[in-house]
Formats: sequence, C-alpha cells, structure tokens
Amino acid sequence: MRRSPATRRQFLHAMGRAGGFSATYLSMQAMGLLATPASAQTTKPNLPAGSGAGKHVVILGAGIAGLVAAYELGKAGYRTTVLEARGRVGGRVWSVRGGDRVEQIGRPDQYCQFQNGFYMNAGAARLPTAHTTILGYARQFDVPLEVMVNVDRSAHWDYNKDAVTERQAVNDTKGRIAELLEKSLAGNSLDTAMTPDDKEKLKTYLAQWGALGKDGSYTGSDRNGYKVDPGGFAHPPQTMDPLTLHRIIEDGFWGGGLSFEETFDQQAPMFQPVGGMDRIAYAIYGHVKDDVRLNTPVTAVGQIDNGVRVMLADGGMVEGDYVLCTLPATMVKKLTMRLSAAKKQALANTLYGISTKVAWESPRFWQDDGIMGGLAFTDQPNALVWYPSGDWYNPRGILMTAYSSGGFGPTPGVANGASSAGQKFAGMTADERFAVCKDVVERMHPGKSGLLEKPLTVSWTQTPWSEGIAANWRPEQRTTDYAELCKPEGRVFFAGEHLSYIGAWQEGAALSSFEAMKLIAARSAGDKVVTRKA
Amino acid sequence: MRRSPATRRQFLHAMGRAGGFSATYLSMQAMGLLATPASAQTTKPNLPAGSGAGKHVVILGAGIAGLVAAYELGKAGYRTTVLEARGRVGGRVWSVRGGDRVEQIGRPDQYCQFQNGFYMNAGAARLPTAHTTILGYARQFDVPLEVMVNVDRSAHWDYNKDAVTERQAVNDTKGRIAELLEKSLAGNSLDTAMTPDDKEKLKTYLAQWGALGKDGSYTGSDRNGYKVDPGGFAHPPQTMDPLTLHRIIEDGFWGGGLSFEETFDQQAPMFQPVGGMDRIAYAIYGHVKDDVRLNTPVTAVGQIDNGVRVMLADGGMVEGDYVLCTLPATMVKKLTMRLSAAKKQALANTLYGISTKVAWESPRFWQDDGIMGGLAFTDQPNALVWYPSGDWYNPRGILMTAYSSGGFGPTPGVANGASSAGQKFAGMTADERFAVCKDVVERMHPGKSGLLEKPLTVSWTQTPWSEGIAANWRPEQRTTDYAELCKPEGRVFFAGEHLSYIGAWQEGAALSSFEAMKLIAARSAGDKVVTRKA
Repeated sequence: MRRSPATRRQFLHAMGRAGGFSATYLSMQAMGLLATPASAQTTKPNLPAGSGAGKHVVILGAGIAGLVAAYELGKAGYRTTVLEARGRVGGRVWSVRGGDRVEQIGRPDQYCQFQNGFYMNAGAARLPTAHTTILGYARQFDVPLEVMVNVDRSAHWDYNKDAVTERQAVNDTKGRIAELLEKSLAGNSLDTAMTPDDKEKLKTYLAQWGALGKDGSYTGSDRNGYKVDPGGFAHPPQTMDPLTLHRIIEDGFWGGGLSFEETFDQQAPMFQPVGGMDRIAYAIYGHVKDDVRLNTPVTAVGQIDNGVRVMLADGGMVEGDYVLCTLPATMVKKLTMRLSAAKKQALANTLYGISTKVAWESPRFWQDDGIMGGLAFTDQPNALVWYPSGDWYNPRGILMTAYSSGGFGPTPGVANGASSAGQKFAGMTADERFAVCKDVVERMHPGKSGLLEKPLTVSWTQTPWSEGIAANWRPEQRTTDYAELCKPEGRVFFAGEHLSYIGAWQEGAALSSFEAMKLIAARSAGDKVVTRKA
Repeated sequence: MRRSPATRRQFLHAMGRAGGFSATYLSMQAMGLLATPASAQTTKPNLPAGSGAGKHVVILGAGIAGLVAAYELGKAGYRTTVLEARGRVGGRVWSVRGGDRVEQIGRPDQYCQFQNGFYMNAGAARLPTAHTTILGYARQFDVPLEVMVNVDRSAHWDYNKDAVTERQAVNDTKGRIAELLEKSLAGNSLDTAMTPDDKEKLKTYLAQWGALGKDGSYTGSDRNGYKVDPGGFAHPPQTMDPLTLHRIIEDGFWGGGLSFEETFDQQAPMFQPVGGMDRIAYAIYGHVKDDVRLNTPVTAVGQIDNGVRVMLADGGMVEGDYVLCTLPATMVKKLTMRLSAAKKQALANTLYGISTKVAWESPRFWQDDGIMGGLAFTDQPNALVWYPSGDWYNPRGILMTAYSSGGFGPTPGVANGASSAGQKFAGMTADERFAVCKDVVERMHPGKSGLLEKPLTVSWTQTPWSEGIAANWRPEQRTTDYAELCKPEGRVFFAGEHLSYIGAWQEGAALSSFEAMKLIAARSAGDKVVTRKA
C-alpha cells in the first residue's frame, strides 16, 4: 500500500501548478490523502465570508448534512436551495409526537396518540460528548441539553427468560473473571513475562478490582446488590449471592450489554436535547428556513452547461451551479442521474442496516423499581428496553421497548442476514412486535406490561425516503465503494453519515458535509460566476 | 451466636404480655432482632394521625434526621421543638454560596465569593437511585432533580504524574485482564471445574468483553479512545495504543477509581437537586419552620419526672416528654448528660472520618476537553477532581478539586491514621491544599490551572458542630458500640447517619430517624400525657 512519499508529492505538486488549489485538493481527497490532524477534523470548513457570492448550491435533503451545509454555505455568501421530500426536516433524526402520522412502506399507517410534550426519538436519540460538532450547533443555537442516562445498574436484564439486575451481570462477571485469573496466578500456572513484584501487585489489585475475598474467591459484595437492603438501627444488609460462572456463560450477556457501554460513542456521559432529538435540526432550520422547500421530492439530477438542473416530482425544476446530494445511498440509487459505472457499482454494493424501534406511553412503573433511565438488554428480538431520561416527576413517560438491529435491508443478490434478530423483528407485524415487547417487559417488571399504551413502531428499512438506518461498511469497502461515493460527479457533490467514519450518527453527517463543502469551495474558486434565471 | 428460636420467642412473648407492644418492641430493638423484610425498611414509621397528641418531642439538630423527625412526628400530632446550633438547617448537607462565611476550628474564616447561583456542596453531593427515602422527600416536596454525572470516560486521571484518560484506565485494564485469562485458558493451565463447552464459550465471551483480537491479544479498540479522531470522507480514525500491563500495575488506579463507580451507592445513574444539595433539607424545613430554633446550641440534657429538660447555651431551657438527639457522636460527647457507662464507652469508641473538599469558581475549560461532569482520580492527597453537572452552557462553574478522605479525626488513645492522604491533606493550610489542587489540575489540563479563582476549603473534622464527616464503624463494633448507641437512654432517643447501615448518607440519617420514631411511638403509647408549661 505504501508508495514513495517523494513520488506522491511530485505528482501533487504538478497537479497544483496545473489546476490551482482546487484541483490539488480534489485530487488529494479522491486519493484519500487528506488526513488532517485530529484537532482539525471537527473544525468547520471556515469558508471566507462572501466567497460564495453569485454561486447557487442546490442541496438535496434537509437532514443534518443538508441543514449544516445550507447554514455554513449561506454564511459564506452562497445562495442555497434545500429540497426535502418530507414535510419535516431532520431526516433520520425524527421525534414523533402526538398527532404525527407514521408511514411505513407496505404497512398500514399509524397515528401517534402520545400526550402533549411526549415524543419518541424514532431515529437518533443520543449525543456523545465526543461529538463536538453537533454539540457545538446545539450550544450555538441554545438548544437546552439534559443528560441521557445510558447506563442504569438497577435495570433488569432478561436473558434465558430469567431476569437479573445489571449490577449482577456487570459485577458478577468482573468478580468471576478476577477469581479465575487469581487462581491462575496463585497456581503459578500462567507463563507470563511478569516480574514477581508485578505479579504480587496484580494479585492485590485484582482482589480490589473484582471484589475478591481474602482467599481469592468471589462471594459477592455490595456491588452486585442486596438481598436485604441496609437500614437504620438493627437492619444490617444481606448481600446478594453471586451468579455462578456457568450461569454467566450460559446467559451470554457479556458480548451484548456488557460491551455496549464501553463502545466509544456510547460511553458516559451522554446527552439529549430537552424535548426531542429533532430540536437541534430544527434550531439550524430556523436559520435557513427561507431556503428550504419541504414536501418537494426530487426525481432527476442533470448536469447542464456551467451548471446543474434538478427535476422535481411536481414537474418543476431548480437550476444551480452545484448540487450537494445528502440523500442516503438507498435514495441516490432511485434518482435519474448520469453516474459513472464505478459509482453505480459502489451504490449497488452499499448495504443499509436495519433498525426497528417500538415505544409506548405508560405510567413510570420502572421508577418504582429504582430505574431512572438506562437500557435493559434481552436475548429476545426486541434487543432492549430503553427507559426515559428527564422529566422525572412526570407520572407518565415514553418507554422504548425495542431497538432491534443487525442484518441488512433486502438487497438483490446479497445475503442480508435474514436470520438475524434485527431482520426477524423488522419482518413481524406491528402487533407481533408489540407482543414480543410486552412479554419481555413482563419478565423485567412482573405484572406491569398491561400498563403499556398507545404503541408505535418505526422500522427504518420500511420508512419512505430512508429505506435503511445507515450504511454498513465492511472495512475493505473503505478504499473501494466508500472512497468512490465520496468523489464528486462533475458538479454533483455528496455527503451524509454514510460518507464518514462516524456512521449512523449526526456527527458523521455534519463532518461529511464539511468535507463536501471544502470540495465545493475549491471547485467554486475556479469556476466563473454564471448569470442564470432565479 | 445462634440461640434456640423457641427460647427467644418465649422470652419475647412473656415480655409482650408484661409490657404491651411497646415493651416488646423496645426489647426486640435492643436485642437487634427486628430485622424487617427489605421492602419494609425504607417505609416511613406511619405513625397514626393524632397518636402523638399531648406529647412534646425536643429534637436536637436540624440535619436530615432531625428535620425528617419533626415532619413525621408533627404529622402524627406530636408537638416538636427542633434546637439547631447553626444559623442554617441541613447539618452536613451544606451548600456554600456567595456571601457565606466558612468557619473552621483553629483556622482563619473564609468568605465565599462565588457568583450568584453558584454553590459548593461541601458535604452531601449525590443521590443514588437506591436511596428511595430521601428521593421520596425530594419528590413529595417537588425539589427539581437533575442527573449528577458520576462517571465521565473522558476524564484525565493523574497517577504517577502522567495523566491517562479514564477510558484508557478502564478499558485497558479490562483488556489486559481478559488477555491474561485468555492465555491461561488457551494454555489449558487453569485447573477449573469448567466443562469443555463452557471453556470454549468463555473464550468467545472473554474476547468480546475485553475487546481481544482474533489471536487473543489485546491491542486496543475504540473503547480506549482515538489517537486521531474519525471524520468525514478520507479521515479514518487511528485507535490508541493500549497501556501495558506493567504501566497499569504501576499506576495502581485499579483499586481506587476503577472500583469506585461500582460501589453500590455510587452506581449510575446518580442525581442532585438543581441549585444545591441543601434544597431537600430546606424543602422539609419549609414544612416545620415554626418548630425550628436556629442559632440555639444546647449544653445539657437532663431527665426529670415524666419528662426531659434541655439547657440552652443562651441560658434558656426547653422541657418536653422526650428528646430525640440527632447530633453526631462527636457532639453528644460534649453534652452534659447522664449516660450509662456502656454508652459513654461506646461514644468514646466511635471514630469519625475525615473529609476535606476544595472548590473554585472557574471558566469551564474542562468542557473544551469534552469533559461534562464526572470524577478524575489522582494519587495525590486531594484524591480527585470533580466536574460540575448541569448548567452546561454557563461559561463558568464550580470545580471541586479535592475530596480527600481516609483516616480518622484525632481521638485520644486511638491511632488515627495520621499518615493517610486524607489526614495529610486535612492537616495542610488552605494555601497548601490549593497548591496541591492546582498542581494536579495543571497535569490534567495543561495551561489551565491559572484560571481557577475564589478557592474555598471545608474539612469536616475542623467544622464546628460536626467535627467529623461520619462515624466509621469497624464491623465488629456493630454488635457492641453501635448497638449500644442505638438504645434509648430513658426518655432520650438517638438518631443520625451513624446509627444506620448507610453511613455518611442522607438516606441513613432518615432511616435511623424512622427507627427512633418507632421507638418513641412505642414508648409514648405507654406513657401518660403530662400537663406542662409551654
């Protein structure tokens, strides 16, 4: 893979002389050579004010990538027109509220009945602190944030149809692992390069880390909870008997729930906008509203002399200097657009993941069990139950009882993981999904599933204008299909979460949009201003 | 220890006949036999309305135990008088605000300069979800809660004067442990009772749990963070090189920070009242205000015919039917009061822990590093840096740069852990403490310690009317000194966090108060109403 840096530099230097900065930049981008330092990656494109004067960018899609582009390009003096097929902005950032219609392809419409102020984040629902770009917009536009509780040790996990608390799952696993390793160290059976001193220290630390007893065995501690809670006066606690190693292995929650909270983008703390995830998208929208045309699906994109022409489903058309297409690959495929064979193939190779959620309005019975936010995992096809954060004293709230993924949407000629839990759950009728959820909730909260009301389900593969939750790149595709889709096609540029290394997140959509804007700016700097009818 | 249940039951049955319910209950309490089921422990005493009519309880101390007693006894018809030495309620629940004076024994006074709305929770600062009693009062009295972020994987831990992120400490430790155990399993060197099937499954799970590679080695993953962050287009991430096992062992953060977050009372999620921890105490105070006398230190407690007499420092006195003394043992010792030899000895044996905090007003430079709440641990004597939760868009906030404990306050004839970090830090001058803090903050946030302003320090051993943060019971004291202090002394009853198994927490104070109220009610039911001058 490594070529001589000299050769590469020579080539780029030659390109720079021939076509100016823009040509160099485009080539570097296309070659995947523009790895900027970490700190530079999340900075905005910083387009000089007025640099876009006289240029018109037609943006397809008013999701995060499109809205961010409209805002930033607008600040630099570009004229922008955002064409959005839906009657709302946000794309896969969708907070469903009472009165909203939920349309799913090939299925009956659902109407949300939630009480005023309640919402279901059908798509994006979390903000990690590492996502400084999207958090930056939230801050810039004063969108109030609250902590999104992603971990609750009181949650009841349902594996093998026998619920345990998360604190048992997490801490008994830790304890059993520490116990096993301690045995191994004590028996000197482990052949390692450790010094005797390190080995002794390790044994001490292991005991603290895993809450082992003096004899190196794990018999539980307050970490896995109490059988009898501590109280005042003559009320000593009784600690919980730990799960056996066999039970832990059988239940198999290690790989799922136990690993989840340490995934980079899921680490504590996490945040959410107060009132629904779409608040950030709508805050940006508030600054570009005049340039956004809702309910305006696009059918075709054509390149004309010194410009682009976009055909609309209503028979109209919009002309401009450039197109920034932020539609998901699933929708790009359906546009009438002249594309290179390489790009067509790349689009065909791009698989989109499945994601299905179910939410209910309900009294907050889980708070009676000491659960305030967080996730409860299950081995059933609904995958997890997600408790609401915030609004703690409201007697009612929205309980998410499924967030099921895995496998891909149907793609001709591609094995799509039809046997995965995600695929299975998405294939169920709404009522079948609700039944799975109630069954799991009943095991987690005996006697309470009957309190769940007004269910709603959204599966992104079945959602018009998305038809998938996010691109699912195999690592080897990054240098082929992914790299190809990042390349502009003449005057048509592309962006979206699928053109980032932070897939399925708003942050990735925004950062890919930044990269696309840099390309547009570079191209724009070399293009003449064309007078065109408005 | 175990006696024949029949014998015990016979004894109690006889007691019941002789003295009615109250005598039985008191005996059972004294014998430590009233272990109620878990669900019953956190319930209120449920004193029948009007059951306290004609009875006057003099309550010493307006901390949580005292305020809860005033509220609950008042509801049952008791007359209560709460005598509080300080000019505020809350006791060791103390939110220091701009304009407040901080008095420390033998040290110069400090005056808090924080801007309006800011506070330092000098004492209690967290609410675990398991503490349903104190959370119940917060809810009953509509005290707004927000999440107290107790864990932030972006925090920088300072061990061996070379900071690493918490995500490195946590996940590299996990990875290295999994790797070691995997080696042990792979080499068949571990003699366990595991079935071959379990062993194979364990290897698979271990790989997921510890993010091991296919060869069983740990080379890092996204869990320990990125050297180069992921971005859009041609910006792939570079994962962090993992800490070596040797480094992890040397740094020794396993026992400290790594175990802390899984301690039962510290597990996620945690909460805090918006605006300061004292909001709950003040909410209860709002309902008993007329019965509370602030700035009223007590000097002596005497039992008189059919009642009690409490002497005040101002020369006055208050008479009543019973005293509920909620003062810490450190203060009970100083009262003139006739106590049994056993109780005097128990008081002498009761050690109180040290706890020293330092807080500053500062611009929120840590949020620029992606830190939003949570704790950063250090091996220096300040123990940790604690970032503020909430008020996220405020450019300034209160940063707690020390919460140092360990060792006991000076106690005649008792080794007090003078060499502990907690003792050392408490022994420093305020300026010395501030210097330690700045040094640690500088390593965690290079170039930023100069932004810290308006420092304030509170050490509970040096705080008048407390002289310690909480009783520190050795397990064997529970059946001797602790049990003795739970017993009433004639008409004088006792409560406080020190008389609970949830020491140092508001919950323990409230639950011990419940137990004391049950004793008072039982005693009161057998006592005649005495007419007494008001």
